[in-house]
Amino acid sequence: MSFSACVLTLYPEMFPGALGLSLAGRALEAGTWSLQAVQIRDFATDRHRTVDDTPAGGGAGMVMRADVLAKAIDHASPEGDPRPRLLMSPRGKPLNQARVRELAAGPGAVILCGRFEGVDQRVIDARGLEEVSIGDFILSGGEPAALVLLDAVVRLLPGVMGNAVSGEEESFENGLLEHPHYTRPQEFEGREIPEVLISGNHKKIAAWRRAESERLTAERRPDLLAAAHPLAK
Amino acid sequence: MSFSACVLTLYPEMFPGALGLSLAGRALEAGTWSLQAVQIRDFATDRHRTVDDTPAGGGAGMVMRADVLAKAIDHASPEGDPRPRLLMSPRGKPLNQARVRELAAGPGAVILCGRFEGVDQRVIDARGLEEVSIGDFILSGGEPAALVLLDAVVRLLPGVMGNAVSGEEESFENGLLEHPHYTRPQEFEGREIPEVLISGNHKKIAAWRRAESERLTAERRPDLLAAAHPLAK
Repeated sequence: MSFSACVLTLYPEMFPGALGLSLAGRALEAGTWSLQAVQIRDFATDRHRTVDDTPAGGGAGMVMRADVLAKAIDHASPEGDPRPRLLMSPRGKPLNQARVRELAAGPGAVILCGRFEGVDQRVIDARGLEEVSIGDFILSGGEPAALVLLDAVVRLLPGVMGNAVSGEEESFENGLLEHPHYTRPQEFEGREIPEVLISGNHKKIAAWRRAESERLTAERRPDLLAAAHPLAK
Repeated sequence: MSFSACVLTLYPEMFPGALGLSLAGRALEAGTWSLQAVQIRDFATDRHRTVDDTPAGGGAGMVMRADVLAKAIDHASPEGDPRPRLLMSPRGKPLNQARVRELAAGPGAVILCGRFEGVDQRVIDARGLEEVSIGDFILSGGEPAALVLLDAVVRLLPGVMGNAVSGEEESFENGLLEHPHYTRPQEFEGREIPEVLISGNHKKIAAWRRAESERLTAERRPDLLAAAHPLAK
């Protein structure tokens, strides 16, 4: 069974976007995953097709209505749908590679993209939406975040990456940032490839890469190092 | 002077993508910002237009060549270009709203999108690339990350958001997650809007929102709370 993604959005024309090209695009064409984009506005009930209203208690911006969103969610993901229901939101739990792996191993995802000030809390509660954040910054809406989440998930689906080993060696798979890379030419603007890498000594190369990973992680992301080696804290 | 973005990529057709629609798209049309997508492959020097090669020291995947990337960067961003040169990379410094604000206040950005295993370290060093990460997960390439970064930046450009106050009240602008939102209808599936929000008492509403923000942040992101109130640690 292929991974089935459904995105609820006010901008269905943003999809598949970048996901229609390259790795993800080829996998989409091959049926390794499917993508449905649902226009939330189609579930509005008034003749102006209103999806939002002013915030209770006052303040700037608009809030997406619980009743309209509930209708859209119930249409896309009826009771019994095994797919997790995600809400892209800067208030959510930060996405990480472990959650990406879990999602990729599952049946798919129903992804609600917020816009404006946010989403009425009652539909989050009533439909059990899992709030997911891709970082501590504010986007114009959940759509670019959904593109990122799906890109991360799709590349892990069976058969999508040409070389499965590649993915496992990358950043975060071992809790460390990746070591520096080099390739031909041997000399670039007076800069040489580090000698150890052209030594042919695989043990030394592995040790150098591990040491560089640890050095970079300590320099840039001590938070990751602490998580990777809890006893070394 | 408008914000000038240049993206170096193997998939220029991914741009403007979602950035061509909604807020960012209207701002692009209005000339509030400009976007150039440069095909890295155009700077390859052999007849196969090779941009990558096998990693020095062995291992899976391919590494983008320093010489080809340097040519592309020098074309897009000659010496004296005041724009920062960013490399989207999971090894980078995590993007946050403060950096987004800085970028939005500047002249633009030159953004290199990595693909494959990564980029030869020597071009990162030689061209002073700032590695930026949008989160602890792996993408198929830097392109979805570049879309996210530009979306976050563009919405802060003068005149892009209809209501400037809205942005300031959002998550992270005060170091806290945003409080829950509610809007009409008053009752949704038996769930009411919290009474305080319809009380008309603005002082009580502000206090409730602040308390909810602090509660949510403590529950979900104690790391942010510690950063917002360093003395309360």
